Amino acid sequence: MIVVKIGGSEGIDLDAVCEDVAALVREGTPLVLVHGGSHETNRLATALGHPPQFVLSPSGHTSRRTDRRTLEIFEMVYCGLVNKGVVERLQQQGVRAVGLSGLDGPIWQGPRKAAIRVVEDGKTRVLHDDYTGVVEIVNTEILDLLLSRGYLPVLTPPAASFDGEAINVDGDRAAAATAVALRAHALVLLSNVPGLLRDFPDETSLVPRIARDALEDYMGLAGGRMRKKLLGAREALDGGLQRVVMGDGRAHEPVRRALAGAGTVID
Amino acid sequence: MIVVKIGGSEGIDLDAVCEDVAALVREGTPLVLVHGGSHETNRLATALGHPPQFVLSPSGHTSRRTDRRTLEIFEMVYCGLVNKGVVERLQQQGVRAVGLSGLDGPIWQGPRKAAIRVVEDGKTRVLHDDYTGVVEIVNTEILDLLLSRGYLPVLTPPAASFDGEAINVDGDRAAAATAVALRAHALVLLSNVPGLLRDFPDETSLVPRIARDALEDYMGLAGGRMRKKLLGAREALDGGLQRVVMGDGRAHEPVRRALAGAGTVID
Repeated sequence: MIVVKIGGSEGIDLDAVCEDVAALVREGTPLVLVHGGSHETNRLATALGHPPQFVLSPSGHTSRRTDRRTLEIFEMVYCGLVNKGVVERLQQQGVRAVGLSGLDGPIWQGPRKAAIRVVEDGKTRVLHDDYTGVVEIVNTEILDLLLSRGYLPVLTPPAASFDGEAINVDGDRAAAATAVALRAHALVLLSNVPGLLRDFPDETSLVPRIARDALEDYMGLAGGRMRKKLLGAREALDGGLQRVVMGDGRAHEPVRRALAGAGTVID
Repeated sequence: MIVVKIGGSEGIDLDAVCEDVAALVREGTPLVLVHGGSHETNRLATALGHPPQFVLSPSGHTSRRTDRRTLEIFEMVYCGLVNKGVVERLQQQGVRAVGLSGLDGPIWQGPRKAAIRVVEDGKTRVLHDDYTGVVEIVNTEILDLLLSRGYLPVLTPPAASFDGEAINVDGDRAAAATAVALRAHALVLLSNVPGLLRDFPDETSLVPRIARDALEDYMGLAGGRMRKKLLGAREALDGGLQRVVMGDGRAHEPVRRALAGAGTVID
């Protein structure tokens, strides 16, 4: 079992990813896809006059401000545009893809952050109307049912809070939790760079391998979304996976290349 | 087994529908929900500067022009905003809802109309870039799997063409095909009127009952979307259903009221 996460940044070649996934499925590899949609969400939010906002936590991390209107825009892009676009590509390749969000079932469940502390102009304030959280429970029943009948689950945020609200969760960490719950042996995280870069955005500074024991040392190298990927990688390895690969989603045969060791291999 | 179709017109009370569906599910009624999203699609399309267009067929019927951009907007609203909104409402009522489109699986399959003839300014022309079709095959495997484990499927267009493309299909007729495939005994079609009106929009002109043999006589009464509902009703009854009810989606307990005979009962 392999879990493949397709990032939502600009430049990822969805056609190439879906073609590659279809080839793996035809070879009989059990696989679950997870995808994001951040770039398209930013575009739609801007077009609708509700431009994306990012907030800074007191510990210095940036995340998307998800008020109720943003959550709706997020669902339109993640569950509508991107999810059905990926499913359609796979159907055209003869794969019986089934698109689901973590809210469905619910497959992904966790606490909503009732209050988040953000730093603005040097001052800390508390937001109460934000819909973000973290996946703590993965219900694999629906995924197992679909996989056992030859369907390919295509999963995306949002997740469900314990009160049944849709919540924005980090897709990389949700993919890691899913991989752990499914006892996958590998997690592939595809983005629009070749892997973890020692000197971002210099692509020749790729870190080809990180031993799991040394993962902490690399956290400092990773800004923004890359940090979430390393967090996800750590959670996946702690949960029993053999290997996480951060691969290039712009490449030809991106999944098979990553599985063959191209990118940053963490094991 | 009951199939409930929630229309996509303005005024339907989704909270009331979901509360009512949750009550039925708790009572142990096996149920599949189907929903539309036309009003919200019109709103989003307008907001994005790609306003809805409707085309007139040579036989005098109106349907949504679905070019590729419209299809994407359609997916954002139907599969994103509305589907996840319905699923979220049901989750909050303790129902294990699972939102899917007909493209997933695919559950709904049929031919895409490769060319559609439309009348414009009295002249007929042919469109080749339209993504519409009709559901001919309902694959109930995923629905049966979900129902057998206590999940409530929440289905929405698009469907898949035989070439794996997403296609806009009429939700009422797709719901009818689903009800037939699931051997449901009743189909409830909720809209923003009390049922079929002899003298639209005069709500006191409600037709309370139509015998199935007399259905043809009423086709003339029904304009626009109501005609699709009658077509769906005919297809459902021809396919073995005992009863179709066109009910009021703005009312309190709209599903149970319709099942109790409020609205237009066709049997």
